[in-house]
Amino acid sequence: MKHIQSRDNPFYKELVKLTASTRNRNKAGQTLLDGAHLLKAYLDAGYTPRHILLNAAALQDAEITSLRQRITGAPVTQLDDKLFAELSELKTPTGILALIDLPPAKIVTARFALLLEAVQDPGNLGSMLRSAAAAGCDAVFLSPACADAWSPKVLRAAMGGHFCLAIYEQQDLFKVAQGYSGKLLATTLQATDSLFDCDLTGNIAFMVGNEGAGLTPELRALATHPVTIPMPGAVESLNAAAATAICLFEAVRQRRAP
Amino acid sequence: MKHIQSRDNPFYKELVKLTASTRNRNKAGQTLLDGAHLLKAYLDAGYTPRHILLNAAALQDAEITSLRQRITGAPVTQLDDKLFAELSELKTPTGILALIDLPPAKIVTARFALLLEAVQDPGNLGSMLRSAAAAGCDAVFLSPACADAWSPKVLRAAMGGHFCLAIYEQQDLFKVAQGYSGKLLATTLQATDSLFDCDLTGNIAFMVGNEGAGLTPELRALATHPVTIPMPGAVESLNAAAATAICLFEAVRQRRAP
Repeated sequence: MKHIQSRDNPFYKELVKLTASTRNRNKAGQTLLDGAHLLKAYLDAGYTPRHILLNAAALQDAEITSLRQRITGAPVTQLDDKLFAELSELKTPTGILALIDLPPAKIVTARFALLLEAVQDPGNLGSMLRSAAAAGCDAVFLSPACADAWSPKVLRAAMGGHFCLAIYEQQDLFKVAQGYSGKLLATTLQATDSLFDCDLTGNIAFMVGNEGAGLTPELRALATHPVTIPMPGAVESLNAAAATAICLFEAVRQRRAP
Repeated sequence: MKHIQSRDNPFYKELVKLTASTRNRNKAGQTLLDGAHLLKAYLDAGYTPRHILLNAAALQDAEITSLRQRITGAPVTQLDDKLFAELSELKTPTGILALIDLPPAKIVTARFALLLEAVQDPGNLGSMLRSAAAAGCDAVFLSPACADAWSPKVLRAAMGGHFCLAIYEQQDLFKVAQGYSGKLLATTLQATDSLFDCDLTGNIAFMVGNEGAGLTPELRALATHPVTIPMPGAVESLNAAAATAICLFEAVRQRRAP
């Protein structure tokens, strides 16, 4: 097994670049998965990583060893603990990182889609991708102002949801919405129709806006079905990821086999 | 208006202590609300703050000025910008802080309650309190291992939800659950009953566990109705706050007036 001990190693420098910015990740077409859980979800989805990186403790770790046995054809490199820690965002790194190609989004006819406009908090974006994957959405479209879906924080928050979704970044949502053949839903406090009374059994796409500002008026105007989430409490306010989960799983409820 | 310019001012030192730890906040029975939005929600709920703190910019701010006109009887103190910034967690402070008494939790017969066990992420806890307030829950019970509900991060994430709920911290949830007269629901991947098929119209309490570990077996065993959230996607995984929102609003859906 190769062992990198110097910050000046050219491969290590490439890895550091990937952690530094969205731009570098897109240019390389690669990102890093941090930790055994994410790597397991990636393998479960049928993908193979490019390269495996370990720290010293990982060599003795039973979970990591059994994960490694599932991977054929990817080289494994040990990094000095200090170098490894600099690539990880975790305070206590699990000891394994995987270099992966950004999966190409497969073109799908979206029966159940999510359009995200300027969702900027990585935790919210990750939670939304995780909910979308669990709900069985087939595609998620992100506007250019969204957080980078393949950044370490979003990957961590989505817990593997990325690998079961077609994720389209840098999208002109106006065009996506105009070309969509199905119901376009947007939640708003002003609508008179309740989410719970709207038929969600056909082709549907939910549009979700920025955490503070909501959807831009231009995109909201394209909603064929503006709906409210009924809120009987004294405040009418939900976190954007919570509201998205409620919408997606009301659709799950209605779309169940009878 | 009093103007504090020195870190050695005794009142200022007391304020710094409040930001430092849960223990100090509980000892004083006070906390700080950061920003105009939270203060507005606090006033809307019928409470009056102890003391208002401003930075220089706030003296010129129209929103803050109109908020201040709603408050009678609370002294106002200006802090030097540097001192003010040290009390605020925000990178760009809105310029107003309110010193408040921790509201006493009113004893209620909970028709619709939430029991939170070891929910440790402040963003998740805040989102859950916000969802609970919007859904019309009447009480939330927190185990000792939960994040501090009255910390700045949780207050910010809950967006005023605190002021419409009875929040009981440091609770023995085992006792709370045993004494509850109604359905005790817990989501688990193992249950055979779907959330959507469970009658949620009577007295109900949802029990939610730690983000990683879920409910302890002891508390889960007290659930009268273990349920699953159906997940048709390729991953069976939801963020704890998203799962909580789905449960609470399925109850909202079922409890609507026909």
